[in-house]
Amino acid sequence: MINKLVSKIKATGAPIVVGLDPMMKFVPEHIQKKAFAEFGETLEGAAEAIWQYNKEIVDNIYDIIPAVKPQIAMYEQFGIPGLMAFKKTVDYCKQKGLIVIGDLKRGDIGSTSEAYAVGHLGKVTVGSKSYYSFDEDFATLNPYMGSDGIKPFIKVCQEENKGLFILVKTSNPSSGEFQDRKLADADNRPLYEIVGEYVAKWGEEHMGDTYSYVGAVVGATYPEMGKVLRKIMPKTYILVPGYGAQGGKGADLVHFFNEDGLGAIVNSSRGIIAAYQQEKYASFGSEHFAEASRAAVEDMRKDIMDALNNRS
Amino acid sequence: MINKLVSKIKATGAPIVVGLDPMMKFVPEHIQKKAFAEFGETLEGAAEAIWQYNKEIVDNIYDIIPAVKPQIAMYEQFGIPGLMAFKKTVDYCKQKGLIVIGDLKRGDIGSTSEAYAVGHLGKVTVGSKSYYSFDEDFATLNPYMGSDGIKPFIKVCQEENKGLFILVKTSNPSSGEFQDRKLADADNRPLYEIVGEYVAKWGEEHMGDTYSYVGAVVGATYPEMGKVLRKIMPKTYILVPGYGAQGGKGADLVHFFNEDGLGAIVNSSRGIIAAYQQEKYASFGSEHFAEASRAAVEDMRKDIMDALNNRS
Repeated sequence: MINKLVSKIKATGAPIVVGLDPMMKFVPEHIQKKAFAEFGETLEGAAEAIWQYNKEIVDNIYDIIPAVKPQIAMYEQFGIPGLMAFKKTVDYCKQKGLIVIGDLKRGDIGSTSEAYAVGHLGKVTVGSKSYYSFDEDFATLNPYMGSDGIKPFIKVCQEENKGLFILVKTSNPSSGEFQDRKLADADNRPLYEIVGEYVAKWGEEHMGDTYSYVGAVVGATYPEMGKVLRKIMPKTYILVPGYGAQGGKGADLVHFFNEDGLGAIVNSSRGIIAAYQQEKYASFGSEHFAEASRAAVEDMRKDIMDALNNRS
Repeated sequence: MINKLVSKIKATGAPIVVGLDPMMKFVPEHIQKKAFAEFGETLEGAAEAIWQYNKEIVDNIYDIIPAVKPQIAMYEQFGIPGLMAFKKTVDYCKQKGLIVIGDLKRGDIGSTSEAYAVGHLGKVTVGSKSYYSFDEDFATLNPYMGSDGIKPFIKVCQEENKGLFILVKTSNPSSGEFQDRKLADADNRPLYEIVGEYVAKWGEEHMGDTYSYVGAVVGATYPEMGKVLRKIMPKTYILVPGYGAQGGKGADLVHFFNEDGLGAIVNSSRGIIAAYQQEKYASFGSEHFAEASRAAVEDMRKDIMDALNNRS
């Protein structure tokens, strides 16, 4: 799956993943109205609205991006109907040829970690049969509990040729409260560097051609830390959140990439899916919101490519 | 909700939470057979089996314990049908008067954290209406991303009188890889102590009568660390996993409690729900598995109470 991700990034020329994080305030009124007319102002109605919204965006951008990253929280909040819309979105994106990164940030231990792994990336056994439950291609994980939480996922990924992105340095303002703490037992280096070393080590257990199936998450909002982590984890693909709405710019991203122009994939969520709400793309109008998303992808691609071409 | 938890612990004399983590290998064959006969060896069949298994256990123990802790991973692995069984279990336990701790270990930031919070503890808005989606009483959280991930949950908990248990020092063998690292910028104290200080500070924002609505998770397998953390977080309720199957014993638990005999609630999952598979309770037979669970709760209660009564 990491090989497929790399080849799709090369084919599209777009090291971009679009975050399908459909908050209701992003969903154009005409879509909400239609869904509520059919299902009422219910969880089912909300789920239908976000599914129709996703579908139209995906139909307009699937050919110019390699991957999408649905954030499961945005679906889970609407209970069972919301999770059905998540599953529908995963299936539809895969059908359209997109790689699907489930943004789960799950993290637990032993048999519990294994349950998440088989449920989202592998097959769960029922009697003499087995089933793919959610069946994403990649999942994001939280490393706080250590190797016990990661190893069961790696095992399933090896069996299924799937991959992971593990939180190392997150894009949010308070990420430093714990992640930046300097470790006396590691030459005063910050915790995120040590987590990065673990990710690189875990990654050796499941290598693709050039990069590992075990990737990392490092926020665009911390470019200097990204530069250091790029060196610590040379064969690790870095998923970079924080571009756009959170403040990251193309120029901040160059150090997340290797010299080969690969090694990083940049996420944008509301910057793409709610582009029509920005002044820049307002002329599309809410009826043509998905065309605005396509234009925003193209602008983002150009911003990143210009930055990569101009790096010194 | 923390006041209710404390009063239920006093009423039952049992500082015990039963982990409803139904692995298929725990579910007695006669229950699996019946569920598969009705729904086939499908995700629906598995979901029906774990629901019937849970229900019979709950029916047999609800009057002698204050709370249950369903581990959502064990349901999520069976996809949508599994999550429907999770929701059914939450609702049924609440109907039986039990407090429900959703073992989610979710952790994200900003609007994403808020989505998990409203989905699991609060109400989600759909047009002019709002709905409780999963509606647990407490949720477990992962702190790796810092305050940005916790604050949205506290806000919802304040509105709904609900609570949290935040991972501080987890029970698993590799929990020390990151949690035990000594911080040069905090007098070489380990990370878990600093996380404990944050939990105590977050807890001040949402206090019950004696204890905070913001609790902590500290593993029974690390009793000495529990002793230190008890002092760092005097008003924090500690959820203690790792008793029984993971190796923790009653005597290890005493330092997790305050002098008032309160301040901790000890979890056991397979030790209770799969008690009938232990030699000690084998005489119940698999048909009477839920009575074996009741006996195991009573033995666990005695083990903890003896240890508390004998503490020096």
